[in-house]
Amino acid sequence: MYSQLAEEKVFKDPVHKYIHVQDQTIWNLINTREFQRLRRIRQLGTSYLTFHGAEHSRFSHSLGVYEITRRIISQFERSGYADWPQEEGLVALCAALLHDLGHGPFSHSIEEAFHMNHEDWTCRIIREPSEINAVLRRISDDFPEQVASVIQKTYDKPIVVNLVSSALDADRMDYLLRDAYFTGVNYGTFDMDRILRVLRPYKGRIVVKESGMHAVEDYLMSRYQMYWQVYFHPVTRSSEIILRQIFKRAHELYDRGFEFRFMLEPLPSLFEGTISMEQYIRLDEAFVQAVFMQWTQEKDEILSDLCDRFMERKLYKYIMLDHLDEVQQDYIRQQFVHAGLHPEYDLVIDSPTDLSYSIYRSGDNPMDKQIILLDQHEKLKEISEVSEIVRSISGIRKGKYHLYFPDNKLKAAQHLLDPQISRLFDMDPS
Amino acid sequence: MYSQLAEEKVFKDPVHKYIHVQDQTIWNLINTREFQRLRRIRQLGTSYLTFHGAEHSRFSHSLGVYEITRRIISQFERSGYADWPQEEGLVALCAALLHDLGHGPFSHSIEEAFHMNHEDWTCRIIREPSEINAVLRRISDDFPEQVASVIQKTYDKPIVVNLVSSALDADRMDYLLRDAYFTGVNYGTFDMDRILRVLRPYKGRIVVKESGMHAVEDYLMSRYQMYWQVYFHPVTRSSEIILRQIFKRAHELYDRGFEFRFMLEPLPSLFEGTISMEQYIRLDEAFVQAVFMQWTQEKDEILSDLCDRFMERKLYKYIMLDHLDEVQQDYIRQQFVHAGLHPEYDLVIDSPTDLSYSIYRSGDNPMDKQIILLDQHEKLKEISEVSEIVRSISGIRKGKYHLYFPDNKLKAAQHLLDPQISRLFDMDPS
Amino acid sequence: MYSQLAEEKVFKDPVHKYIHVQDQTIWNLINTREFQRLRRIRQLGTSYLTFHGAEHSRFSHSLGVYEITRRIISQFERSGYADWPQEEGLVALCAALLHDLGHGPFSHSIEEAFHMNHEDWTCRIIREPSEINAVLRRISDDFPEQVASVIQKTYDKPIVVNLVSSALDADRMDYLLRDAYFTGVNYGTFDMDRILRVLRPYKGRIVVKESGMHAVEDYLMSRYQMYWQVYFHPVTRSSEIILRQIFKRAHELYDRGFEFRFMLEPLPSLFEGTISMEQYIRLDEAFVQAVFMQWTQEKDEILSDLCDRFMERKLYKYIMLDHLDEVQQDYIRQQFVHAGLHPEYDLVIDSPTDLSYSIYRSGDNPMDKQIILLDQHEKLKEISEVSEIVRSISGIRKGKYHLYFPDNKLKAAQHLLDPQISRLFDMDPS
Amino acid sequence: MYSQLAEEKVFKDPVHKYIHVQDQTIWNLINTREFQRLRRIRQLGTSYLTFHGAEHSRFSHSLGVYEITRRIISQFERSGYADWPQEEGLVALCAALLHDLGHGPFSHSIEEAFHMNHEDWTCRIIREPSEINAVLRRISDDFPEQVASVIQKTYDKPIVVNLVSSALDADRMDYLLRDAYFTGVNYGTFDMDRILRVLRPYKGRIVVKESGMHAVEDYLMSRYQMYWQVYFHPVTRSSEIILRQIFKRAHELYDRGFEFRFMLEPLPSLFEGTISMEQYIRLDEAFVQAVFMQWTQEKDEILSDLCDRFMERKLYKYIMLDHLDEVQQDYIRQQFVHAGLHPEYDLVIDSPTDLSYSIYRSGDNPMDKQIILLDQHEKLKEISEVSEIVRSISGIRKGKYHLYFPDNKLKAAQHLLDPQISRLFDMDPS
Repeated sequence: MYSQLAEEKVFKDPVHKYIHVQDQTIWNLINTREFQRLRRIRQLGTSYLTFHGAEHSRFSHSLGVYEITRRIISQFERSGYADWPQEEGLVALCAALLHDLGHGPFSHSIEEAFHMNHEDWTCRIIREPSEINAVLRRISDDFPEQVASVIQKTYDKPIVVNLVSSALDADRMDYLLRDAYFTGVNYGTFDMDRILRVLRPYKGRIVVKESGMHAVEDYLMSRYQMYWQVYFHPVTRSSEIILRQIFKRAHELYDRGFEFRFMLEPLPSLFEGTISMEQYIRLDEAFVQAVFMQWTQEKDEILSDLCDRFMERKLYKYIMLDHLDEVQQDYIRQQFVHAGLHPEYDLVIDSPTDLSYSIYRSGDNPMDKQIILLDQHEKLKEISEVSEIVRSISGIRKGKYHLYFPDNKLKAAQHLLDPQISRLFDMDPS
Repeated sequence: MYSQLAEEKVFKDPVHKYIHVQDQTIWNLINTREFQRLRRIRQLGTSYLTFHGAEHSRFSHSLGVYEITRRIISQFERSGYADWPQEEGLVALCAALLHDLGHGPFSHSIEEAFHMNHEDWTCRIIREPSEINAVLRRISDDFPEQVASVIQKTYDKPIVVNLVSSALDADRMDYLLRDAYFTGVNYGTFDMDRILRVLRPYKGRIVVKESGMHAVEDYLMSRYQMYWQVYFHPVTRSSEIILRQIFKRAHELYDRGFEFRFMLEPLPSLFEGTISMEQYIRLDEAFVQAVFMQWTQEKDEILSDLCDRFMERKLYKYIMLDHLDEVQQDYIRQQFVHAGLHPEYDLVIDSPTDLSYSIYRSGDNPMDKQIILLDQHEKLKEISEVSEIVRSISGIRKGKYHLYFPDNKLKAAQHLLDPQISRLFDMDPS
Repeated sequence: MYSQLAEEKVFKDPVHKYIHVQDQTIWNLINTREFQRLRRIRQLGTSYLTFHGAEHSRFSHSLGVYEITRRIISQFERSGYADWPQEEGLVALCAALLHDLGHGPFSHSIEEAFHMNHEDWTCRIIREPSEINAVLRRISDDFPEQVASVIQKTYDKPIVVNLVSSALDADRMDYLLRDAYFTGVNYGTFDMDRILRVLRPYKGRIVVKESGMHAVEDYLMSRYQMYWQVYFHPVTRSSEIILRQIFKRAHELYDRGFEFRFMLEPLPSLFEGTISMEQYIRLDEAFVQAVFMQWTQEKDEILSDLCDRFMERKLYKYIMLDHLDEVQQDYIRQQFVHAGLHPEYDLVIDSPTDLSYSIYRSGDNPMDKQIILLDQHEKLKEISEVSEIVRSISGIRKGKYHLYFPDNKLKAAQHLLDPQISRLFDMDPS
Repeated sequence: MYSQLAEEKVFKDPVHKYIHVQDQTIWNLINTREFQRLRRIRQLGTSYLTFHGAEHSRFSHSLGVYEITRRIISQFERSGYADWPQEEGLVALCAALLHDLGHGPFSHSIEEAFHMNHEDWTCRIIREPSEINAVLRRISDDFPEQVASVIQKTYDKPIVVNLVSSALDADRMDYLLRDAYFTGVNYGTFDMDRILRVLRPYKGRIVVKESGMHAVEDYLMSRYQMYWQVYFHPVTRSSEIILRQIFKRAHELYDRGFEFRFMLEPLPSLFEGTISMEQYIRLDEAFVQAVFMQWTQEKDEILSDLCDRFMERKLYKYIMLDHLDEVQQDYIRQQFVHAGLHPEYDLVIDSPTDLSYSIYRSGDNPMDKQIILLDQHEKLKEISEVSEIVRSISGIRKGKYHLYFPDNKLKAAQHLLDPQISRLFDMDPS
C-alpha cells in the first residue's frame, strides 16, 4: 500500500544540498535498524588513513544514490517520456536506496578474507524477516522480491535495472562526487545537472542524448582520475593489506585453537562460516575497531603487531617496480626467509591482476558496461564510437607492481639480505 | 633539538586544501598513538545523527587548527612585525596541534556524566610519560611544560596564549569552516584569508586592523548561525541526552552491583573514577559504540532500551515552550509519575541556563573574550564599540525550553495524564 | 496566444547553473533588440573600477530574476498550494524578466544627472510600439498593460506584485548572489534553495514558513554586508561622482553653447530633455565610454580632465569624518575657493542622507517592505517580532561623511590652505 | 630602481581570491593608461554572446597571470631551489603582467581583418614612449627591452621565458580557471595549488615533479574540454564571423570611397594601415560597439545588416558536415549565387584547418610545447612518455566542417536552390 508523506522530509546533504523524501515507504526504510547500521560502515573503508576527511558512511552514499535516482525519474516524468514506465518508480527508488545494504565492515577486506559477498547479504536482508522486509511487504507480498531482483539485475523490466546499475548510474555518480568531496581532491567533479538533463529512457534502456557527450567524457575522466588518485592509492592499499592480514591471522589462530584473551560473538561464527543474518546486522566498523584494540594485547606477536599497526597507522612501506617476474618474486621471498622474515606476513605483492578493472570497456553484458548515445536522428551509438577521448582511455591498463613490507623489520634484518635486494627496498647500506 | 624536514609533508584537506608540515617535531607528534587516537573521536559528537555528513574527526580539526596557526605565524614573519617573538613559533604550533588531545569519546556527554575535563587530560598526556611527551622532550626538558601552559593559558608570553585561544583564534576559525563543510550547511563560511591578512601582533597580543572589521562581523555572524543551526540543534541535543542517560544508568547499575552480561575494562575504572592515562588513551568512540551494541542485550530494560535508541536512532521527541516556571515543571513531573513514567529517564528539560554562552561578550578575562581593533592611528578599540552589528548580537539570549521525552511511552500512557498536559505534548486526544 | 517551446532552451549561468526557458513568449522577449541591449549595460555600473570582476550585465541579472521566479512558481505548483493563481504564471515571469528593461547606461548617475527614472522607461518600452510590445501583444491586447502594472505595483492581484517585488523577492535574491559571485566577495551567499522551499502563497501574498527564519536572517545579513562592502564602497562612490560631474559639466557647457569637438545624437536630445524611446534604446555603456574617450580631447579643461580620470581610473581620493556640520562645510568650501580650487568640481561631500536606505525596515507599504512568517498554527508574524537579529540590524544607520577631492590639485594648492584643513585632508606639511 | 611598497596592495579576485602587489613597479604599471585600457577589452571576445557571464576583461586575466607567476616564484624562493635566479623575479613578473598589453578590441577578428599581431603591439608599447615604458625605465634603461624580449621568447635566460610562456604556464592556468568561472562551465577546474607545489626550476627550465603527473593530466583534460566546449563553440564562431565580415565590408567600402554617414579616427588610419601607437591605445571595444551601432544606419545594406546582426545577436545559423570536398564546396557556392545570395557574405565555411592547433603536441620548439617530468632519480621525461592519457589525447584532431549562413535569406531563396542543397541546410520543403 503506497502512500505519500503529508509533508516532504529533507536531509541536509553536502553533495546534493538536500535529499528529498516524499514517500512513506522510503521514509520507513531509512528508519529501520538495518539501514541505520550503514551509518557505522564507512563508504571508503580504510581510505580515511590516507585522506583524513574520508570518514563518510555508506548511509550518506545510499541516500545520495536514492536522491539522484529520484531526480532522474522526476525529470523523466516532467519531460513526459513515453518510454518510462511510471509505475516502476517506487521499486527503482527502493533498489537505489538499498543496493549497498549488505556491506560489512571494511567490506572489501572482510569479503576477501571470509569469502562473502555483500550483494548476497543485501538480498538476504531484503528477503528474510527483517525490518526492511516488513516495510517492503506492506506494498505487496512480492515487492521485496522485486526490489531484490532489480539489485541482482534479473528484474523483468531491464530499464529499471539499467537505471540503478549501469556504466552511468546513480551509484557511480554519487560516489564519485561524494568521495571527491570528503577526501578533498578535486578530480571527481563533473556536471551532474547536465548529465541528468540529457538522460532519456529509450526502447527499454537509458540512453544519453548526443548533445551531452562532452559531459559524459568529463564524467569518465573523473572516474579515471578518482581510481588512480583515491581508490588505488598505495597508502590505502597498504592499510587494506594490514586489515586482511589481521583477519587472516586471527582466522588461522582460531582454527589452531589459539586461546584469545578477547573473543566475542559473532567472531567465532564468522570464522566458522555460520554467521546468521541477525549476527551479521550487528557487525559494524565500531565493533571491528574495538576488537582490534583489544587484540593489541594478544600474546601472538604477529596478530598484536598487526593490530597495533592498524590502530596507530604504522602501515607497511612500499616500493614500486615496473616489472617483476616469477623468478624475481621467488628470489625475493627466499631472501626474506633467509633474513628471518615471514614470507607472507612481511611481504605482500600487489600485482596488476589484483586490480583488474576497466575504466570503460565493453564487456559481456553490454547493457551494464556501455554508454549509449542517441543522436538527433534517433540513431544509437556506443560512446567510444564517437568519442576519441573515451576510446583512448578505454584501453589504458597500468602495470606496476607494489611490494609492501614492514620497514622496521626489514631494516633490522638488512645485513642478512643480498645487497642488491637491500637496495631494491631502498635500505641504506649499513 | 629542533629540525626541519628534508621535504615538506602535506595532508590533503577539504577545508584548507593542503596542510603543510615542515618541522620534524610536528611530524613526529602527528605519528604518535595518542594523536592518531583522535581519528576515532568525532569532532561533533552525536551531530552525525542530525547531519549525516558530520562524521569528521578531531584528528582533522587538530590538523586544521595547526595549519591556520602556521599560516598566521608565517604571515607575521613575512610582514616582519617586530611584536611577534619568532622563537615562540614552535611552542605555538605544538599547542595548536595538541589542544584537543584529551577529548574522550562523545566528549561533552562523557565529561558531564563522569565529571572529567578534557583539558586536564590533554595536559596529563603532554606532561606524563607518553609518546607525545617523548617527542616534546626532545626539544628540551621543559618544552612539554611550556606547551601545556600555553593550553592552560598560564604561559608567560600572553601573545602565544592569545594566538591559540581567544575570541578569534585558529580553533574557532577551523571548527566553523570545517563543521559547515561536513554538515553541508552554508552558514559557517566567512573570508578566512581576509582575516588572516588583517591579524597583527601588537604590544603582547593579537589585534585586528580596523580595515578587517567587516570580515570579523561576518565571522561572528557565522558563529551565531552555526550555534543555532548546528551546535544547539534539538535533534542533536536529543541524542546527547540519550547518551548521557546511558552513561548515568550504567553507572547507577554498576554502583548497585548489577551483573552486566557485558563489561570490559576500562569501564569499571571509569565508573570508579580510577581510570589511568594508559586506559584513557584506549578509550574511543568505536569502543563506546561496540559496548552499547552489546548492552542492547542487557536485562535492565532502561539501559537496553536507551542503547537501542542510540544505535537505531530512535531518539526522544521534543516540544518547545517559551516559558516554564518551577511550579509548572513540578506539575509536569508529577503527572509523569502519575502515568507510570520515569520522572528522570522519561523527561529531560533543557533550560537556557544549560546553554549559557555568549556569541560575543566581554567577560572576566578580556584577553580571551574580546576582539580588539587597531585603527590607522594605532588606537585600540574593542570591536563592539565600533560595530553596531556586533553590539546588537552580543546581547541576544534565546530563552526557549525544550522538553525531551519518549514519544511511544507517552502515547501509551496518555490516558493517565491531565488532558492539558497531553495537549502540551502534542498528543492527540484519544 | 500562449505556447510552449517544442524543446526547452537553456542558458549556462554561473549563479544558477542553468536558466530554463519553456515558453515561446519568454524566448521571443529575450531575442528582442530592447532586451539584447541589456547586454551592454553593466549590472553594477562603475563598480568594475573597484572590483575588476564586476563586468556582468543587466542581461544576465534579468535572466536570473526570471529563473528564480520560475523556480518559485514551479515549487508552488508542485506543492499544489491553492492560494497561488496558476493562470498568473506568465504575467509574473514576463514582469520578472523585464523589470530592469529601462535602465540606462550607468543608471544611477545618469538618472540623477538628467532627472529620469528607469521604471518609467521600462513601462514605456513595454507599452509603446517596440519589439517587446509586439511579443507581449501576441498574448492579448492588454497583456503589455498587465505586465507594466505588475512592475508599477498597481496590478490587481497583489500576490503577483509581491512575488516580483518585495523585501524577499527574486530580484534581490539574484543580485545578491550574482554580485557576490562576480565581485568575488563571499558575503552575498545564503541558502537560496532553502528559502525557495519555505516560501508559500498565503491569502493574497507571499509568506515564509517559520522554519525558514534562520535562512532569512542569513539573507538579510548578506544584504547588510553587500551594501557596506560592495554597493557603498567609497572607491565606487568616487567613480560615480566623477561620472556625475562629467554629465553635469557637459550639460552646462551645452547649455552655454560651448562648441564640442565631438557631439553625437542622442546627446543633444538628452541635454534638452527631448530624447525619444527609439533614441533611448540606442543608448548604452559602449556609447558613453566612446564619447568620454573623445571628450578627453575637448578644450574645456574641467571636462577633459574628468573624462581622463574616468577612462584611466585616476579617481578622487577621499577622507572620512564622523561629524561635519554646516559651519565646517562652509569653511572648507571657502578654503577651497581661497586656494583656487573649484568649490563644486573639486570637492564632493557624501553625507549620510544621500545614502538613506534601510536594510530592513517597516515602511509605508507594508507589503513591500516586510517579511512575514507563517507559524505552525497558521499565525502571521512580521519577522522582526521573532528574530532578535533582524530587530537589531533594522535600526542600524551609519553616519560617516566622505569628502572626495582631486589629490594632485589639492597638493599643489596646499600652501594656500589653513594648515588645519590641510591636515584634515591628510596633506603632509610642506 | 627597485622598491617595495610600504604596504602590500590587494585586488579582490574571484578566481585567486586576492591578488597581492608588493612592488612599486608592478603597482605603477597597473596604474598606467595603457594597462587600464585592458579593462575595455574582453578576455573572450564575442563569447559573451554564447555565455552571458563571459564579460570579464583582459585586465583581470593579466592580473591573474601576474599573481600565478608571483606564487610560483615565491614557492621557488621558499623552497630555496638553487636553479632559480632570484634576481630575475621582477622581469618575470613584469612580463607576466604585460604579456597581453597589445591586444586590440575583439582581438582575433581584428587581427585577421587587418593583418596585425597583438604581440608586436605589446612590444611597441613597452619599447616606445608610453607610460608603461616610463615606469619600466625607472628600473634601468634596458629594462623595457628585457621585458619585451621575455615576451618575444628571445631573453637570454630561457628559464624566465619558460616560466611565462610554455605548455604549463601562468597564462594558460589563469585563462582556463578564469574562463571556466565566468562562463559558468565546470570543465576548466583543476588543482592549481597542487601544480604550483610540483613545479621546479631545474637546469635552466621549469619541470614538474613526477608525483604531480595526475594533476597535470587533469589540467590537460580541462584544456581539451574548454577548447571544445567554450573556445570553439559554434555560436561563438558565428559571432566572430559576423564581426570579421563587418570589418571586411567596411574596409572594402572605405577603399572604394564609399561615403560613410559615420566615420571617426582612428578608423581611417586603421583601414589605411597607418595607425599610430597613440591611436591604437585609444581603440577599445566600447569604441567598436559604438561605431557598429552608428553603422546600423549606413546605406550599404550588407554593412548595416551585419551591424544589426551583431548588436541584436541575430547570428548566422550553421550546419555541420563530417566531410566536404572542394567539388562540393564549389557546387554549394554556385547554388548560392544562382539563388541570388552573396557567395562570400552569405556563406562562411569553417574548415578544420582554420582551427589547427594541438591540445598537446611536441613541436618545433620543445621548450615551448612540452611538459617535462622530473622523476625521483632526477631523470627527465616528456609527459607523454609516461602518461597514457596524455599520449591518447595528443593526437586527437576533430574534422568537422561548419557552414554558417543567414537563415532568413536562405529561406527566402530556397525555391531557387537544388532541393538536395536545400535539405542539406535543413530547409523544409516548400
